[in-house]
This record gives sequence, C-alpha cells and structure tokens, in this order.
Amino acid sequence: MRMGVHREVRETAEAIDTMEIRGAAAIADAAARALRAQARASDADSPEAFRGELRAAARTLFETRPTAVSLPNALRYVLHGIEGATVAALRESVEATVAEFCVRLDHAQADLGEVGANRLRDGDVVMTHCHSTDALACIEVAVDQGKELAAIVKETRPRNQGHITAEELSELGVPVTLIVDSAARHYLNDVDHVLVGADSIAADGSVINKIGTSGLAVNARDRGTPVMVAAQTLKLHPATLTGHTVDIETRDVSEVVDRETRTAIGDPDVANPAFDVTPPRYVDAIVTERGQYPPESVVTLMRELFGEGTTRPWEGA
Amino acid sequence: MRMGVHREVRETAEAIDTMEIRGAAAIADAAARALRAQARASDADSPEAFRGELRAAARTLFETRPTAVSLPNALRYVLHGIEGATVAALRESVEATVAEFCVRLDHAQADLGEVGANRLRDGDVVMTHCHSTDALACIEVAVDQGKELAAIVKETRPRNQGHITAEELSELGVPVTLIVDSAARHYLNDVDHVLVGADSIAADGSVINKIGTSGLAVNARDRGTPVMVAAQTLKLHPATLTGHTVDIETRDVSEVVDRETRTAIGDPDVANPAFDVTPPRYVDAIVTERGQYPPESVVTLMRELFGEGTTRPWEGA
Amino acid sequence: MRMGVHREVRETAEAIDTMEIRGAAAIADAAARALRAQARASDADSPEAFRGELRAAARTLFETRPTAVSLPNALRYVLHGIEGATVAALRESVEATVAEFCVRLDHAQADLGEVGANRLRDGDVVMTHCHSTDALACIEVAVDQGKELAAIVKETRPRNQGHITAEELSELGVPVTLIVDSAARHYLNDVDHVLVGADSIAADGSVINKIGTSGLAVNARDRGTPVMVAAQTLKLHPATLTGHTVDIETRDVSEVVDRETRTAIGDPDVANPAFDVTPPRYVDAIVTERGQYPPESVVTLMRELFGEGTTRPWEGA
Amino acid sequence: MRMGVHREVRETAEAIDTMEIRGAAAIADAAARALRAQARASDADSPEAFRGELRAAARTLFETRPTAVSLPNALRYVLHGIEGATVAALRESVEATVAEFCVRLDHAQADLGEVGANRLRDGDVVMTHCHSTDALACIEVAVDQGKELAAIVKETRPRNQGHITAEELSELGVPVTLIVDSAARHYLNDVDHVLVGADSIAADGSVINKIGTSGLAVNARDRGTPVMVAAQTLKLHPATLTGHTVDIETRDVSEVVDRETRTAIGDPDVANPAFDVTPPRYVDAIVTERGQYPPESVVTLMRELFGEGTTRPWEGA
Amino acid sequence: MRMGVHREVRETAEAIDTMEIRGAAAIADAAARALRAQARASDADSPEAFRGELRAAARTLFETRPTAVSLPNALRYVLHGIEGATVAALRESVEATVAEFCVRLDHAQADLGEVGANRLRDGDVVMTHCHSTDALACIEVAVDQGKELAAIVKETRPRNQGHITAEELSELGVPVTLIVDSAARHYLNDVDHVLVGADSIAADGSVINKIGTSGLAVNARDRGTPVMVAAQTLKLHPATLTGHTVDIETRDVSEVVDRETRTAIGDPDVANPAFDVTPPRYVDAIVTERGQYPPESVVTLMRELFGEGTTRPWEGA
Amino acid sequence: MRMGVHREVRETAEAIDTMEIRGAAAIADAAARALRAQARASDADSPEAFRGELRAAARTLFETRPTAVSLPNALRYVLHGIEGATVAALRESVEATVAEFCVRLDHAQADLGEVGANRLRDGDVVMTHCHSTDALACIEVAVDQGKELAAIVKETRPRNQGHITAEELSELGVPVTLIVDSAARHYLNDVDHVLVGADSIAADGSVINKIGTSGLAVNARDRGTPVMVAAQTLKLHPATLTGHTVDIETRDVSEVVDRETRTAIGDPDVANPAFDVTPPRYVDAIVTERGQYPPESVVTLMRELFGEGTTRPWEGA
Repeated sequence: MRMGVHREVRETAEAIDTMEIRGAAAIADAAARALRAQARASDADSPEAFRGELRAAARTLFETRPTAVSLPNALRYVLHGIEGATVAALRESVEATVAEFCVRLDHAQADLGEVGANRLRDGDVVMTHCHSTDALACIEVAVDQGKELAAIVKETRPRNQGHITAEELSELGVPVTLIVDSAARHYLNDVDHVLVGADSIAADGSVINKIGTSGLAVNARDRGTPVMVAAQTLKLHPATLTGHTVDIETRDVSEVVDRETRTAIGDPDVANPAFDVTPPRYVDAIVTERGQYPPESVVTLMRELFGEGTTRPWEGA
Repeated sequence: MRMGVHREVRETAEAIDTMEIRGAAAIADAAARALRAQARASDADSPEAFRGELRAAARTLFETRPTAVSLPNALRYVLHGIEGATVAALRESVEATVAEFCVRLDHAQADLGEVGANRLRDGDVVMTHCHSTDALACIEVAVDQGKELAAIVKETRPRNQGHITAEELSELGVPVTLIVDSAARHYLNDVDHVLVGADSIAADGSVINKIGTSGLAVNARDRGTPVMVAAQTLKLHPATLTGHTVDIETRDVSEVVDRETRTAIGDPDVANPAFDVTPPRYVDAIVTERGQYPPESVVTLMRELFGEGTTRPWEGA
Repeated sequence: MRMGVHREVRETAEAIDTMEIRGAAAIADAAARALRAQARASDADSPEAFRGELRAAARTLFETRPTAVSLPNALRYVLHGIEGATVAALRESVEATVAEFCVRLDHAQADLGEVGANRLRDGDVVMTHCHSTDALACIEVAVDQGKELAAIVKETRPRNQGHITAEELSELGVPVTLIVDSAARHYLNDVDHVLVGADSIAADGSVINKIGTSGLAVNARDRGTPVMVAAQTLKLHPATLTGHTVDIETRDVSEVVDRETRTAIGDPDVANPAFDVTPPRYVDAIVTERGQYPPESVVTLMRELFGEGTTRPWEGA
Repeated sequence: MRMGVHREVRETAEAIDTMEIRGAAAIADAAARALRAQARASDADSPEAFRGELRAAARTLFETRPTAVSLPNALRYVLHGIEGATVAALRESVEATVAEFCVRLDHAQADLGEVGANRLRDGDVVMTHCHSTDALACIEVAVDQGKELAAIVKETRPRNQGHITAEELSELGVPVTLIVDSAARHYLNDVDHVLVGADSIAADGSVINKIGTSGLAVNARDRGTPVMVAAQTLKLHPATLTGHTVDIETRDVSEVVDRETRTAIGDPDVANPAFDVTPPRYVDAIVTERGQYPPESVVTLMRELFGEGTTRPWEGA
Repeated sequence: MRMGVHREVRETAEAIDTMEIRGAAAIADAAARALRAQARASDADSPEAFRGELRAAARTLFETRPTAVSLPNALRYVLHGIEGATVAALRESVEATVAEFCVRLDHAQADLGEVGANRLRDGDVVMTHCHSTDALACIEVAVDQGKELAAIVKETRPRNQGHITAEELSELGVPVTLIVDSAARHYLNDVDHVLVGADSIAADGSVINKIGTSGLAVNARDRGTPVMVAAQTLKLHPATLTGHTVDIETRDVSEVVDRETRTAIGDPDVANPAFDVTPPRYVDAIVTERGQYPPESVVTLMRELFGEGTTRPWEGA
Repeated sequence: MRMGVHREVRETAEAIDTMEIRGAAAIADAAARALRAQARASDADSPEAFRGELRAAARTLFETRPTAVSLPNALRYVLHGIEGATVAALRESVEATVAEFCVRLDHAQADLGEVGANRLRDGDVVMTHCHSTDALACIEVAVDQGKELAAIVKETRPRNQGHITAEELSELGVPVTLIVDSAARHYLNDVDHVLVGADSIAADGSVINKIGTSGLAVNARDRGTPVMVAAQTLKLHPATLTGHTVDIETRDVSEVVDRETRTAIGDPDVANPAFDVTPPRYVDAIVTERGQYPPESVVTLMRELFGEGTTRPWEGA
C-alpha cells in the first residue's frame, strides 16, 4: 500500500475491486469523492507533497480496474482540473473540481437524454441492442416530450439484456416487439433509428459496445437506417489516443452453451467475446450530455475533457 | 377427394400433410413415386383420361403443402417429362421419368458436395449458419479429399440448429468453434467462406434461408469474405418466375421467449419469422448438383428444369 | 422502293415513319401484319423468291425507324419463326407465326401485370418515374387483387409525364402524392418499391429509360429500396448483343426552357437528353410477360426470343 | 412587447418578420446593429440591468424567425463576446464586438470565395444546384484568378433558381449548359466538382440545402465526383448540437403544379419540401470563410464560434 | 503411350508440351486438327472402336497441359459435336465439326473486335492492363471504324507486357501514355473504359487475368469507370462449373527482383503470382465473338458451347 | 537578398535549395535553428525591427521550397510561438520556442512509433507501400514490445523504395515477402493492417502519399482491411486550410522507362506523377506523435499547432 493513502481511498478501491461499487457512473463518482477525502484529510506541508498524495491515491484507485474507462476519466478530470500555489488553495480546488464533476455526472444522463430525444420524431420506430441506460434515457425524454414511439428490441444473446430493455420500455408505455438477434435485418426497413449505448469510444471514432452492435450497424447502413450511439462523455477512452486498442473481454463460455449440451454436441470450442468494435463510418451520431457529435470528431471532445491521453491517469496532478 | 385418385397417392398426401414424410428430398421422392403408383394402377382408356388422372393425383399431392418447393418441383419434373400417344406409352414414360428423377435425387447431394468441396481449399475456415445437409455435404467431400478445414458455427437462435451442425462437423473431424449469432462479424476477417444452405431460391436470384442469413451475407461482403449457398436444384422456386414472393413462415413465439419470462418482462409482442431474403448481390455462388452458378443466372436453370413457372404445377401433363 | 414490296407494307412503313402508328406495341403489331400481307399477296414461284420478298418487306419496314426496338424485334420474331419447303408451306408458316406473335403481344401487358403485381404487397407504397403502361399494368392488377397501394409520383421534367401517371393512378383509386423529381430521395425511406418502365434493355443488363431513372435507382439502392423495371420482352434490344450502345435521343431544348426565358438568362447552352442508362447492379428485377428476371440474365431470354443479334433483322428469313 | 426594448430593435424585428430584411447575411447584420442601438440608447444603471436589456432585445429579435440560422448566430456572437464590469465597459464591448462581427460578415463571402476558388483548377467543369451566392463567389474568384471554368447548371425545380445561377455565371463569362434536374447523373462523369451552397449545417455534419442536393451528392459519390459545399460559418446551426433536427420547410404546392392542372390530373396530393438533408459521408469539403473542413469536423468550429448550443441564444449575455 | 494414338496426335501433344505450339488459339486449333488426323487415319472397325480412339487421342492431348483452358475446350467442342451410326458417318462428322471449329476460331478475334469496338465511342480514352490480342482487336476495329481513341497503358510489372501493348497501339495510330501500375487510380476519372483480356473466365462469373486486374477493377468501380473484358469463348473454363477453382500460376521470383538485389536487401521471400481473380460485380461486360454478356450470365454460354463441365473432357465422345 | 538577413539563414536556405539538407525533419530542424541564429545575431533596436528581421529570415527560408510542408510548419511554429514586449524578451522567446520545437521534433518519430505500435497485435501481418521512417517506427516499437509481425512489402515502382523497406524490416527481424505493386489485392485478405506514411495531409483529411497509396486504400476497404497512416504533425499542410490543393510532383519519365526502350516501343508519352491523393473515407487512423486521429479531425490539430493557414507563413511574427 502506498504511503499516505487515506483509508477512504483504500476502502473505495476495495469496493470497486470487489464490484461492490459498479456501473460506470457509480465508479466515477466514488473515485472522485475518494480523491476529495484524501484532500480533506491531507496534512501535507507543501504543495508538492499534497500533489504526491493525490497521485498516490489516484494510482491506488486506478489499479483496481486498469481496463475500465470511467474510473481513469474521473481521476483525469480531477487531477487536470486542480490548481493552486498553496496546500490550502489546492485543497479548495479539489473541493470545487470534485463538486463540479459530481454535479455534471449527476445530470449527465438526463442532459444526454434531452439531446437524444431531440433526434427522435413522433411516430418513430427505434431498434435497440443490449441494455443501455443512456439509450433508454433518450427514449424516456422523448416520451416525456409527448412523442409516440415504438421499439423493436433484440434479445441480445447470450445474456438476453434485451429482456431488461423490453421491460423498461414497457414501463415507459412504449410498445415493444421482441426479436432474436438474427431477425434484425428483416425489420430494418421499418425502423427509423438504431439506438444503442457504448461500453467505450475510441479516439479513432470506433464504438466498443456489446457483441453484435457492429453487425447491426453495417446492416443499418445497407438499409439506409441511421445509427445513433448514446454515451456519456465518461465513456470516451483517452488511452486510445495513444493507439491502445480496447481489449475485448471474453466471458464464460457457459453463457453460450451449458456444460451438458456442449458435451452432447461433440464438445466444441466455444468463443464468447463480450464486445465488438463498430468503425465510425457506420455510426451517424454520438449523443452525449455535451451535445451530439459525428464519431470522427469525438477525439476533439476527448482531449478537451481529459487531456492528451496516457495510460497513467495519475500523472495529471 | 378427386375421382380416380389412387389409394397410394392419397396415403402419400396424408403422410406429407401430417409431416410423417418430411424433408425436401423425402417429400419429392414420395411424390414422384405416388405418381408412378397412379400410372401403374390406372385403367384409363384414353391418353386424355390417363393424363387427367395424373393431373388429379398431382393436384391432390400439391394441395397438402402449397407453399413447399420440392413437392411441386417433383410434380413438374414428372408431368413435363412424360410423352406418348397411347396409355401404354404414357405409362412407360412415367416409369422412366420417375426412375430418372429418383436416381438424380438420390445422387444430388453427393454431386453437390463434390462441387462445393472443389471451392474449398486446404486450411480454409468456414462459417456456417443454421443446419443444412447440402452445406455439410460440401464439407464432408472436402474432408474426404484430404483437406483440413475448421468451422465457426453460429448457434442460430431461436432453435439452435447450429448445435446439430457442430455435432455433425465434430463427427467429420472438423474442429468447431461455437459462437452466438451476434459474434459473427467479429470473426469474419478470419473466415475464408461463409457456407449456408437454402430453403428456396427465387427467380430474381434471392436466397430464402433461415433468419439471419441476409445479415450475415451483408457483413461478409463488408469484410471481403465470399458467400456460398449450397442448394439442390429441388430448392429452385419456379413460382417466383411469375413474381410470387416467397411467404416467410412465422413460427411460434415461445421459441423466442417462454411464457413465464415473457410475462415477467412486460408481455411484449414477439415476432418470430423463420426465414429471410438475401439479395443476389451478396451471394458469390449457388452450388447445386448441376454445377455452380452466380445467383443471377439461376433463373435459366430453373426454366430449363421445371418449365416456365405457374402456381399450378399439375398443369404440365 | 424495293421490287415486289406490297402496297400494305409500304403504307405501314409510311404510317410508322410519320408516327401515325406509334407506341412500341402498335408498331410491332403493324409490322407483323404487314409481313403477313406481303406473304398473302405474294405470287413468288420459289421458296427463295418468297423469302426474298419477305426480306425486302422487312427491310423496308425496318428502315423507317432504324433505332426503334420493337420494330426489328417483330421482324426478327416472324422471320426466324417461319419454315417450309414450298411457297405454300412458307405462307402458312407466316400466317401461324404472325398470329402467334399478335396473340402474345395482345396478352403481354396483362401477363406482365400479373407478374409485377405479385411482387407488390398489400399496403405498399410505390414510387414512379415518367409514365409507363407496363408499370401501371402491375399496379392495376395488384389493385384488382384487392391490394391497397399508394403512390409517390415524380413529375418527370421536362415533359411532366408524371401528370399522366398521376391521373391514371387516381382512376385506379390509388392515392397519389405528386413531387418534383429532386424530392425523390427525401421520400425513399417510406417507399417499398421503385417501379419504372423501360425504353429498351441492353444485352449487358442495362436499362435505358427516361432521363432520371439511373439517378433514382442509385438513390434507391442507397436507401435499401428495391427497384423493379416493368418491360415487355419487345423492349429487349438484340442489337446490343453485338456491343452496340443505345443512342440516347436528344430532344428539343425548348422543352427545358422557352426561348424568351433562355435569352433573358444569358442564352446558355441547353442539353436535353431524353433517356439515361441504369447499370444492372442497381435494378432488382426485370418484370416481363415471360416472368421476372435479374437484369444480368435477360441476355439469355433475348437470344432465345430473337436470336443472336445483328443490326440487320431482315437477315433471318 | 418587452420592457425597455429600443425602438430600432422593434423596427428591425418587424422588418425581419415582414421579410423586408431578408437573406442570411442581411438579417445577421441588422440584428447585430440592433443590439448596438440598444446598447447605445440604454440608460441602465447597473451591469445587470444593461445585460437584461440586451437579452430582451435579443429575444425580441430571435422570436421573429425562430427557425432561421444566421439570426441566432449573430445574437450568440455578440452576447457571448461582450464583457465588462461597468455599464460603460459593457457598452464599449458591444460596440467592439458588433464592429468586429460586421466587418467579418462583410468579408466572409469574399474570403470563402478565395478558399473555394483554390480547390478549382483551370479547365474544370462544375455542376451546380439551386442558386447560392457563396458557391458563386468561389467561381468568381477562380475566374479572377484566370482559371477557365465551365458549368453544368441544374434548373432546380420547382422554383428554377438555376436560371439565376445560369445568368450570373454568364455574366462572369463562364459557359453554361442548362439541364433538367433528372439529367444530372448523365453528366456527372464529365464533371470535376459538384458545388452547392447550404441553408444550414448541423452538428452531425449533415448539410441542409435545397431539395435535390442529397440525391445529387449520392450520385456524385457513385461517379467518383467530389462534392464541395460553400457556406459561411453563419450557416452553422448550433441548436443541432443539442440534437435538434432542422425542420424542413414545406412550401406552397402551387409551385409544383398549378391549380388547374392539378384538378385535371385527378387532384392528387402534392408535397413540396424545400430542403433535404445530405449526410456528411457524401460531402468532401465544407468551404467557409475560415477555411475548408471535412463535414465531420465542423462541429468543432461551431462550438468555437457560437458556444455550446441551446435553443435560447439570448442566454449568453 | 495409349494404343492406337496417331503419330500426328503424339507430335501435336509434344509440340504443345514443349511450348512449340503456344497461345490459346494456336493450341486449340492444333488439338482440333490432331483429332481430325486421328479420325482420318483410323482403321477402327466399329463405331465404338472409333470413338475409343478419339477419346484416347483427346486424353493424350489433354494431359500435356491439364490446367490450360483452350485445349480442353477444343476437345470438348469436337467430341460433343460428332454423331453418326457408322465409322464412315462418324469420320465425316469429325471432318465437319473440326472444320466448323477452325473457321469459327479463325474469325473469333475479328468478330469479338467488332463487338468490343461498338462499345467504344469516338474520343474515348481507354486504360489497358497487360497485353491482350482480344482487347487490342476491339481497339483496332474501332480505329478502322474511324473513331479517335487514346490509351493509358499500365506497364504491368513484373514482365512489362504493357510495353508490347504500347507498341501495338502506336502502330494503330493510337496516342499512348505509359504509366506505372500504381498510377492507374490517379488517371481513372479521365478514362472512359478499362479494357482488359482474360486468361480464363469461371462459371461464377469471375475473371482470371494478369495480376493487378482485380485491383484495377475495384478502383474503376470506385471512380465510376466501366470495365470491359475481351475474351473469346475459348477462354470460358467449363471445369469451374463443377466448383473447381482456377489455379493461380506462380512464376519465377527473379521476374520480381534479380538475385543480386534480393541478397542486398536482406534476402526476403518473394511472391510472384501471375494472375488474380476479379469478382463479376466489378466487371460491366464480357465481350466475346458471340456477343457481349454480363459476367453473371456467361455460365449459360459456357454450358451451351461446351456442355456441363467435368474435368475429363475426353468423356464426350 | 533581403536586408538584414543573417548569413546562417542564407546558408541554410541555400543548403535546403541544393538539397544538401533534405528530409522533412532535417529541413524543419535547420529552419528553426536558422531563425534562432537570426534572433541571436540581431541588433534590432525595437521589437518591430526585430520581428521584421525574423519575418524576412522566414521568408528567405520559405522561398527555397515553397511547396514543401515541414519547412513552413517550422516557421509557423516559431513565429506563432514568440511573444515579448522588448527585443530581449523576444529573443529569449525565440530561444525557448526553437528549443521546444527541436526537442519535440527529436522525439516525434519515437512517440509516433509508440502510438502506432499500440495498434498492432502480436501475430499481425502488415502491408507496406513505399518507404516511410514514420511507418517503420511503428513496427520497430512493436517489435521492441515483443510482438511478432510479418510484412508484405510492395516494391513501389518506379523507384523501388520497397527494397529499402524490405531491407530495414529484415534488420528488425521481421519476415518479409516482397511483391509487385499489382499483387497487393491478391494478398489483402491475409493482411491485418495496411501501414503507410504520408508526404502531407490536407485540411479536408486527404492523405497525399507515394503514387499507388490511394488505389491500395480503396482495395483495403473492399477487403475489410484497416488502413493506418503514420505521419508526424510536421506533415500537416496548413496551406490546404485555405483550399489550396497540393501540387502533385511529376518526376522524370526515365524512372518509368529508359530512353532506349521507350523508343523501341513507339516512343509513347510517359506520365510519372510521384504522389496521389487518398480521400479520408479510405483511411482508418492517422497516427502522429500527438496520438491517433480519424483523418476527418486532423484539421483541428492542424489549426491548434500551426494557426489558421495562409500561404505566407512568415506573417505570424
């Protein structure tokens, strides 16, 4: 354990590590608050020492989930945002920056929902893939605006997150038609928007999202249907600025086929990649809480918010 | 029941109707044999009466499955093939035509397999969708030719026919990787051929096959991977010559989601189309027992084998 | 004037020349009947002399409109169809061939309409360009089949043939929305079929039709909307088999802008091509009275009906 | 009427409302000057009161044409640009900002023309759609640079603005060929640039321009011809940052067909959308007075000049 | 050596084997004549024995170059064409069939040239790849028709056959611009036709031609430039009907880099494939002596001329 | 010679002019140092005079190679970067800016190599065109990271720079396969990345690079293979912001064909363009020392580093 790292930082790190805290926004929020706790508790006697403590805290937090996106973005945002010539000034700056970050974070999904809803027109049919609270926020605001929408919901094998989407849309009063993933193209000519979330967005404009997104987007282009990705800026992946590709998580193969069946069918290899990569040329707009962007210009927003990326987000302070 | 229709014809019709006889080839074989039984048993006293009996028999058989493809093709083949000026000559002609039809039918899959296998090279990786004995015949012959192949097998929701494909490929000694349908694009750059069967093939070159085929083909084109459709000529759909579109069967929604889950997720509508339509521009070759063809030229073969199509195949005699 | 050409042939030739007889079908019908008149009136004393007369008659007819399509096709059909070892037998053969040709011609549009109608489904929206009785026949039959259709009709500058289309569709009870040509893409996502006729169809599968067809077809492909060309086989252009390109007629520039306005705007050059060429890759089906075909396979039908093409259709006899 | 809004502001608002003042640049210029008049006349006794007056003035102006683009951009530019701790300082700041805005506006078209002209080479053939002074400025500068150009001018139904373009190009000494809109694709292989203006440009890079632009752009891509959009930054539409789509004005249907003809052809519905939306992937460059940009990066310029967009441009002050 | 194979057959086989006889047409001509020599010299005493001799002769000839195309096509043409119930009748039939074949062969290039020339217009610029007498025949006829053409000639590494093309075009009076292969796309917008020959054409419509053809065709499509393949029907490859892919010849690597240089640059591997495969979707027309065809319909011509293909062409007799 | 231009500036200008100093980085470095020499030696008695001297020096340097890219970028960087109210302060500012520029320049290729290497995965096959030290830096870093790579190297006629690439890759231990340029498409399905450098990059996202790059990129897109351009920011071409197109250098035709051969083949014209233009839609990422960017967003970086472009880079001071 690094010297001088505050107990609350250590506890937050552990909670992230054990997935007690999870979800992109919750992790980001907790990380920012942990940095504030560190700042409040610091008895550093020089600005350098104070900054060093913050860096150590950030590094401790970062190392729990080095491949996550929202975690380093929260750390970058705070560490890049602080300034001051004295410990007191720095501490005050941390307070202000964390407060601003948490407020923005708190409003981000609602703001994003406004932007996305504005792209939807009364009577539109939306096709969804997987489950994304950012995507659903767009529909929710549109419904609040009085627009009648209908949804075609892909079940999203292997984990059927489409079921959650179907349920939440039903609760919003949106009529849902549930389909298997393979049926998507069959219905695309009746669809006005493909609307998906994102796991992360790379500097080259690629969208990393639930496996099947890229195949859907290619077919949507072929059918003349626009594709809209709803993603808070927290999903922008600054490490990709330096060329890093996003590792595609491989999940347990029992999600695809249970042990018994697998044996019965000759015990084949099974591959279960959780995400895929959609090139920017198949995406019409990325909808964020800061407005909408063509995927090719998201890199500008990424640098503006989180600085030129490195893989060591604690280096900002 | 029509006058003079032989008992064996009626029994065959019933067996097709109850799905006791099923599978495109089995139905075609049984229908041809039933026409032969009718011819053998006929006591018609004029060529016209004899032909009338055959037409009635054909119509009886046809009406059990008016949307099937192999059934009317068998009837067309026999009725178009017979000739003779006397009842005896006509009866002999039926014998010969049915014999030829059944022999060809018997060899068709093996012959098709030869053609398809020749397109595969040693070391190739093949991606499959659904389960098709025609497609598997190509791989089987290729394996017999000593080629080492590997397969990426899509599970093919909702009925998981990919499991059968996986099992049969394992038995052939072909290493299999099983994936969910949505993962197909993620692997297409590592694939040398997409290989699928067909439910039927239309005059405009469209391939009607298991739901998900069209979306796969569009992605294969995007990735530069050729698409090969293995289909006996029995799958050519002459009624489409006259502009008829192929009805897409809608299957029970419980295949997509069971009753209990459906209720739990807000009781959405569920759509379960069994097939979709792949335009010819996404298919590189149709492999038949008569050789391979670009999809755009299959209409020529269709007219050659089964005449200019109408929806009343018994009109040939 | 050639030796021995019958008065009725000369009169028909003149009536075609002066456009007293016009329209592809009317010209073809008249040309076939003129050949029959020649055959009936012939006092040739040898088969060679008889054939010579027919050739001379055909040539006389052909030269009135050497760039038309239906005229040489009628001549080809009759001259290729006759056979016989005596003058009497040849004369009888002409009678039979002309009768068959005229009957087919008479039914062609209705038969074509059946084929095209089968491609249309209840509730479809069709976009039209220019005015084509073949295209309208498809809609008429579909309406007779009880299908509800709606139409978006392009006005088709410079001659506004869309107005005629609008009027005839209204008479069929089809709701029409009239638009300027430039508005087509704006509506293509709401359209189920683009449906146009053809001036002629080339051996390489290209469709020659009213200026603006190709631009519409390219946009339809971009929007995922299928394009269907309704054209009797009379429109197949056998001379293109030998590589001849179809001359694009240039019409009077006053159709584009009147004299006075032209002067007022600086007296620009004006170009008024009547037709353009749509490559086969943008057309989904060619609908004829002999069934529907992918454009790439029409060359097979062309050779079957009219022989291997030359530019001298009278050479068949 | 809002409290304290100066008479000149009210008069300007009315002149905009009645279209006495029209054209994007004229409106922007008048709006900026009206704000200056308000500032000069203000007897506000606090900075807050002064700002409140400006906001009220801006709102009054804005509400005359809430869907225009240049009007809110002028208001945004001024309100975002002012600063000062006293009424005097603020008034001075308004003076300076308005002066700068008007000077830039005054030079914008000439500067844009320089940029666009640099893309054109001696001997190029340019195709135009509609009438755009920004597009013509590019040609004018190119001609001044000594380049020989020729133009193919689409008439641009229904209002034939191509006639104005033809006339102005003639005056520049550029040889013009006038064509109907449908003939564009026929000539695209002989064209070096498609050059159009824009009504507005959205955050997602879409170009909103005269109906027919999108269909032309799609065909230009198909033919390998680059598309260049000339648009002053005044045409950037900040409200689209928040996902708002641009309303497509529908104009009087009598522009498409006169009353009498419409009745004669069965009284069809007529649709007359004035604009359409061209996705960024069909546009090669947006030429502005600030240089040229790929359409996907225009959002960066938009935020730089006019701030993050809302629909209430008076909120800046 | 097979029993009863005539000396002239053996000599022809040897001359083909040693490449004394070479070129597709020369080989085909020699093979047909050798079969005639066999027929003339035969003292077979039964039709079966006579046919057996012909088969043996055909097999002997075939085995000299089992991967050639024109050789088996000549054998197929003759063996499929003969008929007769007696040795004398069969012998006469061989005479007639060989005569017909040789006459057609003799005229094929000129006839093909007519077809191809008709596609070229006065003033056209043609881009060539490699050297093809069939392609040059099209230009020669066009020049004879009085058309002014210009040519952009790719040098065609590694063997620079473009130099031969340049020289022969110069002799025809066609102005030539020679370029490196990589410069092709840079000039494609100034080109009216890409015109190439073919080594062979497969049943699926693929064109096998000199390495670099496919890359050129893909770029031509991207630039809107049509691609025309000139190929006598002798180049149709019936063995591909049964799915056989065409083996791509690999040539000596010293054509790519000489021994000394190769050593100097680190002795890399060198690959020197002689041909590549162009999918039919990138080819606009195949020009043959029997007319022009879309590549997707060439399979029909192939079956018509050479029967359903097998890999044992001697099986026809 | 301009007044007051320092001897070292004049010498540097001459060395650039005579190509004694060459290569984009060497020129940029020398130009920056020459400005520093000017600043150090200046005896200007006012800031205005000092700036005037710098402008004169910059102009002198610029005019040696007005079409180069790195030279004006170095001048822009320094002139835009300096500030100060006194001659002493300005001189110090020049020192600091030049130092920063040279340090960045010194590290740029290594930093860029890191970014590019991160895009490459263990086992990847890379295809190269021409010779680019930026592109090779990516491979070198990847090899240092322990990744096993293989390369397919296009020879890159006419100057065979691929030989240099092959040699340098061999020295890095990367297995190389050398091919002729035309063979590229044949191998693209086996390639994971196309990796090239750039001569310069335009504001519209176009990549100007060695002739053949654009044709390769179009084929890579067709085959689903990503294209990565490695280019230091020094290659960004700010003059293109103002619409200037990049002049394509035409080199000596004897590179294409030697005098003797040219005469022997009919003395054709020869064209030898050194570069071509790849539109941004065919490029997946531009890799710079400042991170990777979609080509459409490079304009933002260009403006940030070098200001809004004019063709007179000395105007910055």
